Amino acid sequence: MSEEFLKVARAAKEAAAELAPLPRSPKDAALRAVADALVARAAEIVEANALDVERAREGGTSEYMIDRLRLDEARVRAVAEAVRQVADLPDPVGEVVRGGTLPNGLELRQVRVPLGVVGIIYEGRPNVTVDAAALCLKSGNAVLLRGSSSAYSSNTALVKVMQEALAGTEVPAGAVQLVPGRSRDSVKELMRARGLVDVLIPRGGASLINSVVEESTVPVIETGVGNCHVYVDADADLDLAVEILLNAKVQRPSVCNAAETLLVHAAVADAFVPRALAALAAEGVTVHGDERIAAYGDVVPAGETDFREEYLSLDIAAAVVDSLEDAVAHIRKYGSGHTDAIVTRSVTASRRFVATVDSAAVAVNASTRFTDGGEFGFGAEIGISTQKLHARGPMGLPELTSTKWIYTGEGHLRTASGTVIARPGPRAE
Amino acid sequence: MSEEFLKVARAAKEAAAELAPLPRSPKDAALRAVADALVARAAEIVEANALDVERAREGGTSEYMIDRLRLDEARVRAVAEAVRQVADLPDPVGEVVRGGTLPNGLELRQVRVPLGVVGIIYEGRPNVTVDAAALCLKSGNAVLLRGSSSAYSSNTALVKVMQEALAGTEVPAGAVQLVPGRSRDSVKELMRARGLVDVLIPRGGASLINSVVEESTVPVIETGVGNCHVYVDADADLDLAVEILLNAKVQRPSVCNAAETLLVHAAVADAFVPRALAALAAEGVTVHGDERIAAYGDVVPAGETDFREEYLSLDIAAAVVDSLEDAVAHIRKYGSGHTDAIVTRSVTASRRFVATVDSAAVAVNASTRFTDGGEFGFGAEIGISTQKLHARGPMGLPELTSTKWIYTGEGHLRTASGTVIARPGPRAE
Repeated sequence: MSEEFLKVARAAKEAAAELAPLPRSPKDAALRAVADALVARAAEIVEANALDVERAREGGTSEYMIDRLRLDEARVRAVAEAVRQVADLPDPVGEVVRGGTLPNGLELRQVRVPLGVVGIIYEGRPNVTVDAAALCLKSGNAVLLRGSSSAYSSNTALVKVMQEALAGTEVPAGAVQLVPGRSRDSVKELMRARGLVDVLIPRGGASLINSVVEESTVPVIETGVGNCHVYVDADADLDLAVEILLNAKVQRPSVCNAAETLLVHAAVADAFVPRALAALAAEGVTVHGDERIAAYGDVVPAGETDFREEYLSLDIAAAVVDSLEDAVAHIRKYGSGHTDAIVTRSVTASRRFVATVDSAAVAVNASTRFTDGGEFGFGAEIGISTQKLHARGPMGLPELTSTKWIYTGEGHLRTASGTVIARPGPRAE
Repeated sequence: MSEEFLKVARAAKEAAAELAPLPRSPKDAALRAVADALVARAAEIVEANALDVERAREGGTSEYMIDRLRLDEARVRAVAEAVRQVADLPDPVGEVVRGGTLPNGLELRQVRVPLGVVGIIYEGRPNVTVDAAALCLKSGNAVLLRGSSSAYSSNTALVKVMQEALAGTEVPAGAVQLVPGRSRDSVKELMRARGLVDVLIPRGGASLINSVVEESTVPVIETGVGNCHVYVDADADLDLAVEILLNAKVQRPSVCNAAETLLVHAAVADAFVPRALAALAAEGVTVHGDERIAAYGDVVPAGETDFREEYLSLDIAAAVVDSLEDAVAHIRKYGSGHTDAIVTRSVTASRRFVATVDSAAVAVNASTRFTDGGEFGFGAEIGISTQKLHARGPMGLPELTSTKWIYTGEGHLRTASGTVIARPGPRAE
């Protein structure tokens, strides 16, 4: 590992040990100091961002991507406001998750504690630099940020402002670190930093996430790939089904909780598919249909990849299935375990769908777009986990914590025949 | 991957899908059928076990290891009884972890669901084959068992008996699978079976666990390495400290929650160390001490490895520290994050130790030996996790589950300005 990387990783680990036992007040004060500094030094941040934007323009980056990259003073103020909102959220650290007195009198508590050092690999949106840092600090974690190299100047400026703001607070400035360098090597270093980094959260496309999962020795939380399905059941209200389908597909097609595949029960295909095709066409959606969908109108023929793919655009794959069980089998085969919806009036159908679809979220008569930390009332979200260990679905502050068991006795000893208590004697000194 | 491996892994995955939605009653009935079959076919199991024992004897295995390997009819009956006890435990699946109605009327629940397929790599104790299978089935998971090759005949017989018993129940027989073959390759296959196996739990020595962590693309839960510390504070009751130290070290030295290192605050070293050395010597414990301990008596000089090592024997490393902070720093540097104890009368010292020691369990005025699923009241334990993600400390049935979010609306759509409800119309057919 490079000296530069080891230096920031070790600094983060040291800071994490200092930050972990801090109670809420100093953490909130530090976050507010960060927010103030971002606003006060917005010009400096915007100037650094302009370098990234210029480089991106010269490199021929699309205007859509440049817009994600770009910061102006108003956007910096919005980022600072988001930090203040994180300060207002409850502190997950110290929460007693379970607790009680054991039969032998030992007092046992399971308490939330920070994870330690959280590594985050993310796309070219500089606001994530600050959002992620704020969520990690609030939950008592140090953070190692590895943003897109396209935002390196912006991220360098943002981390500098945050560190300098923290220097005047009880939170150690080293708790926020930017992984140095623009090269891919620094992603590799992050993935191999077992013992220095406690968890790695890759945010971005499927290929980044797969390579991290494949190569990382640091535990990984997979986020964000969403091949979401809308299944229109034999017993669906078809008016509702059209509305839910459209909302799930077109309200914001570029996000992970947008629908990517429509499945229609054969019993309602005649009544529903023509309506769905017309409604999708009216919204500019291209349908990639199987042969049974093609019987109802002009669609692009769908292959395996269409069902597997996350379009993130105004495209949708579509198929007719013969039963709820076939719909579930399709989702199990092709889905990414993010969010899948059923539209049905049948209690039994909804029970079966909910019980057998193996995804982070299952929606009944609702758009897939609601799978979101904000909508769930978490106040903030670091990502949406599509894995089963540790956290599944939208991840808020509690998902950035671990737990610790604490037991307190007064000389409790374990023997083959049960607990014996060695009573304390008089003061020894 | 070999065809043999893929066959059992796919069978487990299929069985997992069938098993996951089953409620408690059929799972309990299946476990009782397994227990009955184990008792009824004990002779056959003991016979298969005799082959393993014979091979081990020929290979010069120690009598201690042979005793762990050996099954007789009484032991098979005890194993069956443990299965009945698992049947009696509450079912974690279906538990609503969090839930409520969102401001927009969506009903949101987070519900426990099985993980899917659990892979377990374990030592040469055939009872683990049945214990692990029972815990996985109860929590709705299929299990892929990879026991020590030294127990292969026993495990083959046990899995055959379990599968044949399940065949007469609602739980699919394929839910319990033995990874075929004795070679190390099958461990590798298990580690690379991402998509077929949802989590891997290695049980055994540090080298096995490290190699699994390093090479596995399947998420891993680390278990069982315990370099546990007993810290005797400046304000300790020294009578209590001697008792706790002895219990933690000698009551069962071969287990992961036994103490491996003693740390003594300099302020009580004169009063405590001579007593501790005498008491440990009387129990046959060899002390590996630093120079400051050596000042009080005859000890083996301790090096870096002594402080890092898990002896699992009647040996203990020992050092004098100048402060509680130095004790914590020592534990952070050398510990394995399992269990560390403080002996103190001071509320402030215990608060600080608990807050800054970063381990799965922290004991105050109690022996480290209480970190145990049975002692914690879990009813059963699949292992003790020393990692921070997903589960930390003793793992019972809930730790073998994931969660799923379920939200139910009546046509809930997400728009830029908030939720809109597309009310259901009249029946469509």
